[in-house]
Amino acid sequence: MPIALIVHGGAGAIAPQRQAAARQGCAAAARIGWEVLRQGHSAMEAVMAAVVALEDDPTFNAGTGAVLTAAGHAELDAGIMDGATLGVGAVAGVRRIQNPILLAQAVLASPQVLLLGEGAEALAATQGIPFIDPMHFVQSYQRMPSQPLPADASGLDHEGKHGTVGAVALDAAGHIVAAASTGGYLGKPEGRVGDTPIAGAGFYAEDGVGGIACTGDGEAFIRMQVARRVAEALGRGMDAQAAASQVINVVQTRIGGTGGLIVIDATGRVGFARSTVNMSYAYFTEGLSAPVVGI
Amino acid sequence: MPIALIVHGGAGAIAPQRQAAARQGCAAAARIGWEVLRQGHSAMEAVMAAVVALEDDPTFNAGTGAVLTAAGHAELDAGIMDGATLGVGAVAGVRRIQNPILLAQAVLASPQVLLLGEGAEALAATQGIPFIDPMHFVQSYQRMPSQPLPADASGLDHEGKHGTVGAVALDAAGHIVAAASTGGYLGKPEGRVGDTPIAGAGFYAEDGVGGIACTGDGEAFIRMQVARRVAEALGRGMDAQAAASQVINVVQTRIGGTGGLIVIDATGRVGFARSTVNMSYAYFTEGLSAPVVGI
Repeated sequence: MPIALIVHGGAGAIAPQRQAAARQGCAAAARIGWEVLRQGHSAMEAVMAAVVALEDDPTFNAGTGAVLTAAGHAELDAGIMDGATLGVGAVAGVRRIQNPILLAQAVLASPQVLLLGEGAEALAATQGIPFIDPMHFVQSYQRMPSQPLPADASGLDHEGKHGTVGAVALDAAGHIVAAASTGGYLGKPEGRVGDTPIAGAGFYAEDGVGGIACTGDGEAFIRMQVARRVAEALGRGMDAQAAASQVINVVQTRIGGTGGLIVIDATGRVGFARSTVNMSYAYFTEGLSAPVVGI
Repeated sequence: MPIALIVHGGAGAIAPQRQAAARQGCAAAARIGWEVLRQGHSAMEAVMAAVVALEDDPTFNAGTGAVLTAAGHAELDAGIMDGATLGVGAVAGVRRIQNPILLAQAVLASPQVLLLGEGAEALAATQGIPFIDPMHFVQSYQRMPSQPLPADASGLDHEGKHGTVGAVALDAAGHIVAAASTGGYLGKPEGRVGDTPIAGAGFYAEDGVGGIACTGDGEAFIRMQVARRVAEALGRGMDAQAAASQVINVVQTRIGGTGGLIVIDATGRVGFARSTVNMSYAYFTEGLSAPVVGI
């Protein structure tokens, strides 16, 4: 079976001075995930390694680089789906977790599917998931060059609204895993959740069909169940790239939602599409010795 | 255009001594919603009236009758979708709201789609949505006859795990609205969220396609995006009843998830299915002077 891996670092209008870092961060995460896959490990291990790398890179709006809410703190969301079992784990509104995708994976292993805020953090405490001082997110945000303040956030196409990260992998056993992680959008109200922790909206994986991870206008992506729509298109026999383009187009024409997504189908074909100015991405497929990188 | 309205009061193994109250509560809510529709008002108004009635009836595990978490308090979830606009409003983990469906409707009217806990309650304060002392839920729960304590909850088919309420209506303008509200399951861990506030999982509405509201094993219903799957089946031309039965069967055979759902298609045909012992429901279609009621 062919293997494949794709990551993205968010869609939006990415400032020119930040594009090189976004490309490099995606390439680095793709290399990390690809090396895991190439050594014969699972899609689950590859996706986790790639998303942790993206969360740890302050370039991206997830984990360390999360943007701040209107109240000036970080609230993070993440989700992961195992295509072999249709298992899902997700967290929303966590404030003290260094790598929310690690906690989402712990939820996947629990009887629950989606845990919120302090309830999710209570699971983290029992599972040895690393906590972090919430001020770390504020300080990390303030260190970034030319960051707008939350009060300046306006316009759906602003980069601060579109900085989710995601990864999808297909392993040699035919298993597909998809994951997403985000800080939400800059200046969001307390408690706001977008598509990132919602299976079928921000991410989806099903062996024999494909895997999808989304970024963009999270409200629109929930309303249209974007990841599930891509899976439906794949299920009807559509090509990965055609499915990605068609669904991104439908979300924009039908309800004006913008964003992007990445997809791998069950045969290892890669697709990606965006209705925003930019979306940083990197992928490996069989035979490539370096990632294909774009923005 | 034909009009139609259906409600449910939860799926599970409903104790014999509580079946009459569940049937009567569903019938009463259906009458309230049907009268709204019959007077020429919208599906939105009819669904809201029906769900508020179900939330106010202590028989059901939503609003006033919500079950308690492992920690002994109530955490409520609700969601609503407007098939005319594909607009969604939902809340998760609210503790002080008398009628969570009213707050979900306020979120529908806001720029957000899903708000959690205290963030959702902050919106309630600005919109005049009634608050309630959290102890009210504890006292209401304790007043119910032969209620198990949270520590006694076990087994997926236990009534305490399956008490969500929901409603779907089709109005004379062809607009479809679907909504759901729940206290979750008895003894759930803090922060746990099931399918009820997740568009495409616990509820879905799209004019020209249909409306769906679900109840049951919320984790399984998220993993399978149950409401969206029913809409897909309707979109392929399947009959409302066939779509309901097929999807409930798929959820059970594929991942062992049990529960039930109600559906109205774009032509006003009603469907419902369950894989549990019982699901209380009541519906009206054109020409009926009394609701069809069952359990």
